[in-house]
Amino acid sequence: MRSTDPARTEQVIALDDLYKEFTKEQLDPLWTQVGELMPVQPTPNARPHVWQWKTLLGLAERAGRLVPVGKAAERRAIALANPGLGGLPFATPTLWAAIQYLAPGETAPEHRHTQNALRFVAEGQGVWTVVDGDPVSMQRGDLLLTPGWHFHRHQNLTDSPMAWLDGLDIPFVQQTDSGFFAYGSDTLTDTSRPDRSRAERLWGHPGLQPVALLGERRSSPIAAYRWQHTDRALAEQLEIEREGHPATMGAGHAAVRFSNPTTGGDVMPTIRAEFHRLRAGAVSEPRREVGSSVWQVFEGSGSVLLSGIEHGLERGDLFVVPSWAEYELTSGDGLDLFRFSDAPIFEALDLFRTQVGRP
Amino acid sequence: MRSTDPARTEQVIALDDLYKEFTKEQLDPLWTQVGELMPVQPTPNARPHVWQWKTLLGLAERAGRLVPVGKAAERRAIALANPGLGGLPFATPTLWAAIQYLAPGETAPEHRHTQNALRFVAEGQGVWTVVDGDPVSMQRGDLLLTPGWHFHRHQNLTDSPMAWLDGLDIPFVQQTDSGFFAYGSDTLTDTSRPDRSRAERLWGHPGLQPVALLGERRSSPIAAYRWQHTDRALAEQLEIEREGHPATMGAGHAAVRFSNPTTGGDVMPTIRAEFHRLRAGAVSEPRREVGSSVWQVFEGSGSVLLSGIEHGLERGDLFVVPSWAEYELTSGDGLDLFRFSDAPIFEALDLFRTQVGRP
Amino acid sequence: MRSTDPARTEQVIALDDLYKEFTKEQLDPLWTQVGELMPVQPTPNARPHVWQWKTLLGLAERAGRLVPVGKAAERRAIALANPGLGGLPFATPTLWAAIQYLAPGETAPEHRHTQNALRFVAEGQGVWTVVDGDPVSMQRGDLLLTPGWHFHRHQNLTDSPMAWLDGLDIPFVQQTDSGFFAYGSDTLTDTSRPDRSRAERLWGHPGLQPVALLGERRSSPIAAYRWQHTDRALAEQLEIEREGHPATMGAGHAAVRFSNPTTGGDVMPTIRAEFHRLRAGAVSEPRREVGSSVWQVFEGSGSVLLSGIEHGLERGDLFVVPSWAEYELTSGDGLDLFRFSDAPIFEALDLFRTQVGRP
Amino acid sequence: MRSTDPARTEQVIALDDLYKEFTKEQLDPLWTQVGELMPVQPTPNARPHVWQWKTLLGLAERAGRLVPVGKAAERRAIALANPGLGGLPFATPTLWAAIQYLAPGETAPEHRHTQNALRFVAEGQGVWTVVDGDPVSMQRGDLLLTPGWHFHRHQNLTDSPMAWLDGLDIPFVQQTDSGFFAYGSDTLTDTSRPDRSRAERLWGHPGLQPVALLGERRSSPIAAYRWQHTDRALAEQLEIEREGHPATMGAGHAAVRFSNPTTGGDVMPTIRAEFHRLRAGAVSEPRREVGSSVWQVFEGSGSVLLSGIEHGLERGDLFVVPSWAEYELTSGDGLDLFRFSDAPIFEALDLFRTQVGRP
Repeated sequence: MRSTDPARTEQVIALDDLYKEFTKEQLDPLWTQVGELMPVQPTPNARPHVWQWKTLLGLAERAGRLVPVGKAAERRAIALANPGLGGLPFATPTLWAAIQYLAPGETAPEHRHTQNALRFVAEGQGVWTVVDGDPVSMQRGDLLLTPGWHFHRHQNLTDSPMAWLDGLDIPFVQQTDSGFFAYGSDTLTDTSRPDRSRAERLWGHPGLQPVALLGERRSSPIAAYRWQHTDRALAEQLEIEREGHPATMGAGHAAVRFSNPTTGGDVMPTIRAEFHRLRAGAVSEPRREVGSSVWQVFEGSGSVLLSGIEHGLERGDLFVVPSWAEYELTSGDGLDLFRFSDAPIFEALDLFRTQVGRP
Repeated sequence: MRSTDPARTEQVIALDDLYKEFTKEQLDPLWTQVGELMPVQPTPNARPHVWQWKTLLGLAERAGRLVPVGKAAERRAIALANPGLGGLPFATPTLWAAIQYLAPGETAPEHRHTQNALRFVAEGQGVWTVVDGDPVSMQRGDLLLTPGWHFHRHQNLTDSPMAWLDGLDIPFVQQTDSGFFAYGSDTLTDTSRPDRSRAERLWGHPGLQPVALLGERRSSPIAAYRWQHTDRALAEQLEIEREGHPATMGAGHAAVRFSNPTTGGDVMPTIRAEFHRLRAGAVSEPRREVGSSVWQVFEGSGSVLLSGIEHGLERGDLFVVPSWAEYELTSGDGLDLFRFSDAPIFEALDLFRTQVGRP
Repeated sequence: MRSTDPARTEQVIALDDLYKEFTKEQLDPLWTQVGELMPVQPTPNARPHVWQWKTLLGLAERAGRLVPVGKAAERRAIALANPGLGGLPFATPTLWAAIQYLAPGETAPEHRHTQNALRFVAEGQGVWTVVDGDPVSMQRGDLLLTPGWHFHRHQNLTDSPMAWLDGLDIPFVQQTDSGFFAYGSDTLTDTSRPDRSRAERLWGHPGLQPVALLGERRSSPIAAYRWQHTDRALAEQLEIEREGHPATMGAGHAAVRFSNPTTGGDVMPTIRAEFHRLRAGAVSEPRREVGSSVWQVFEGSGSVLLSGIEHGLERGDLFVVPSWAEYELTSGDGLDLFRFSDAPIFEALDLFRTQVGRP
Repeated sequence: MRSTDPARTEQVIALDDLYKEFTKEQLDPLWTQVGELMPVQPTPNARPHVWQWKTLLGLAERAGRLVPVGKAAERRAIALANPGLGGLPFATPTLWAAIQYLAPGETAPEHRHTQNALRFVAEGQGVWTVVDGDPVSMQRGDLLLTPGWHFHRHQNLTDSPMAWLDGLDIPFVQQTDSGFFAYGSDTLTDTSRPDRSRAERLWGHPGLQPVALLGERRSSPIAAYRWQHTDRALAEQLEIEREGHPATMGAGHAAVRFSNPTTGGDVMPTIRAEFHRLRAGAVSEPRREVGSSVWQVFEGSGSVLLSGIEHGLERGDLFVVPSWAEYELTSGDGLDLFRFSDAPIFEALDLFRTQVGRP
């Protein structure tokens, strides 16, 4: 229903003119959209979502038969595309997560980029990722790092294919126009297959630093965090809890954070990595955090309550928790989960908040 | 031209099926888009652009007559909408910049948000912005801060309208789903009109801190950086340059950074603020930086070469420099510029780079 | 009375032998002295003590007539020798404090040392201290800095003698064997008499930093903290207290800390400097701190209760507060005090404690 | 020979009077002693010195028969008394080093102090040091920490006596009057004999931190650095050197620094701890450092050139390097050394310097 009051009509016309003028002059009024621009709490477009490992792996194997890796294609990686992000290949507004697949004998060529990367191995083995000339073996349960601007290639030096999870800050870097990329050498220089990288042999001793290489680094120099250490640390937290001393995040809920030994902080400037273990039957406290995260079930089964909807979880399954979405984990007969998030971004910028329990 | 080789055809079909399956399963292959996702250097959508002050002010005055301020509308602010950002009201992917206008007697109501805000006064006076109960006068040349989560209202306590520049990190916070907002009190509690805020009286003495209020703060406690200090600091840099000692960024190019006296760092966690002065005829070195910035001419005239295109600059004009776009300033008979940028984000996350001169 | 029990006697002899052996082998048992080595709380040898300005000044003037300054003698400085420190020329175990005197036309020659130095001007003027080639005028009420390893000379360019307070960390550096010293140039290069040093003109603007000279520095780049700023900051704290807002350390007790604008921390790594003002009749809270300090009355009179003993205070008087000694200040008709201490040493090493009020 | 010039005589008398007056008024002139107070480089009173382990151990055993431990005596610790420090029980002006001895079944009672302490086990086992209720076993090659203000007792729960090296910052804390001490509980609460402390089980995994206990701590939470890790880290440095990659301080000279995993810095605010290994025949570069250190030979033999004098070294021998004294290590058929120093004090206060090689 339109106004017939002439003054009102005149004002409507004037306003209409004004808005047209705004558009013409590349301007936009705040007052028509302040609620959307500055909501009372985060209202992410990204949606909670679960991807099943068996589906991912099946598609990765098909891609392995159909799609080559090499210069230009660079990587046979299949990205999680959050259903709320309009078809973009992003797990969350800041994080990229993909299953990467390398057939026997294949090499993903050398390059480097300012984007920070991690790999988590849910199953399999046989690939060495060569970071700045240091070959790093990939084994089940390991977390591997490729911090920004380090050259890296991946080499499958065995007879079996291998798949793993890639985690990067590609969306964040793209959105903020802050990325650089460079191709590396075409020559395969090192096909040795050491169990442990030089990085681990120098830096992977608890509380010990090599005097010759001291100094604060923006990213962890530990190229690989091995499963045997992670597993043991989690097991000991649950034992110490049983002995009656503080050790766990909540009853039956152990967790370790992967850290940079030169600072005590996160492994990379934009990405946090953790491993969580819930003993059989344990339920985590409900929790909300600013920033988003990607989880992968490593072992066991259970469920996650995500913004009020329950999702069953099996080995290898991946799920995404958007910013400020509530999540609560329930363990079946034991549940081991790897997790990475963008929390360091918000902590660095004084934008981090967390809420534990229900208010 | 399609292949008629049956094997090739079969593979095309298989690949097609695979891509369909990806879409169905909320997946997206990296290999078809890696160049776009990880370019060799930043390729911002945001474009260099200049807005003329006289146009902005004229439209703000028209809005002043047509649009009320108050609850829900909150602020009569007209945002710069970068022509490369598809109609979004964002100056750059991270920064929001707007002209805000307040008529005599008007009050923009109290609220707070996690977004960080600054105000820069290119001309006029008469408004007091009340930050957590402390009235801060706004005068020509002043930089005012409203760091995240501080309550603030703006009150025009005079007979003249007033317009100023608002700078916030709204796009960054929105894109990363990290914002919170809350309404404040409806009651106008303090209509006093002090020349100097309590914040300045406590913190605005060079190198002096109040012992009773010591401690590191994430944002500067100096609510207002007054023009008289900025002007003097710039003038002295040029004098010291003339006396033959290091003081300026380049010949005839003085610059100060507004800083947090409790840390020595930037005024707010996501926003850097600076003031630049080029003496008559001076030309700055060409420069590129990761991250974007918004500049406003405060006094004088000249031009800016932005990604190779020259734009004339008059008093009050605003322009935007996207990430990694080259810019070079040329002073006519003197050029004073205020600038704010998102550089602290990239420095905190080890993503900052700068390039001075042409390679 | 000696034991006549043969076993006991035998043991005494054995112990005696053991102790002799210890001495011979450069060893010393803990068990005979643990209480002295590790007392329940600090038990300083240094004693609270007051030196009267008129006495100091009189002796300095006599020294001015009898003792030349120049190479080898370096400085005509008369140090406070704490009565508890066995004749050492140290105000406290860490701090050196002296009255330095320069007759008209005299120059104290250029040198540098890793010891950090400050000067406080209780009265007079006419000397320029030239720090790394930058002449810094000395005026009543000013605090001047000479951080470690900066070349400096003092030049009296007027017709009047001048005396001031020197504060250094000489005892700390000597005790820890960490000092280096070097002679400078013999040539008097700069006899200009500027009101303000280049350091102040670059760094002495509230919250502003020169972009060309940015970066964290271990000591403050502000060569001189001028009395006009200190005075104003203190006056405003007392006004704001009167207006009903937090500003002071206690009722009627204003205080500012001199700070390094590049870090927000103390002016030098080992020395803290503050200025305190008690309005007429005010009494400070009783206080104890780890570490020692030297105070000088700048203006007004009053008294200090030092470890339970009251001492009257007149303009210029100096007193020393040893570690963990309780002190309480009482203002007559107003009391202004400069203070420097070694607190940054203990804060940096996690050894600082303070106690306010009586337990 | 006295002057007979009357004017000269008069001046001598006047000066004499002045100096008497200085003494009376608790003053001391700088000009008569500046060279001593501010030498060109450190001139420590402490002297290089070597103590032989077999002598120390023999005397400790005798003390074990003659001197009880318990309340008041607190510890059966025999301190190295540097021959240059006038009989004080101090290894250096900042560091205390002692052999502590505990007979079967003995308990050194619980207390705490702000002084930081470490233990290094050159040989033997059987004692548990209980730190804040957490029993920490002591084994050959281990470094144990008791950071300031943690309660601790030592319990010998076996049939053999045990001796170890204690390292503390007692002299520094005493000299600066910054120490506090408190007795703990008289009751023996925990006689369990775990192989690994809870602290290690929570914190002793490479690069992993317990999420429930995160946060920066001033001292390392790792109560025990076990020999197996230290040994392996050193062995791998020498291997990597052999493979042609950077890893060692110099040819054949491996070294690890014990670090605080929550900061990447030193284990305690005032004490640095390192372990050095020289392969057979290796010679370290000559080196000088501000600050002092105490070394103990753990395994092997060789010699040290200390300020130009060579000293033979056998297993267990201790030696002290004063500030800025040059030292050079020569390995016989392999040399393993533990070392602790006061370097964190000087780094924190910007007083650290080091010189490698001969100028």
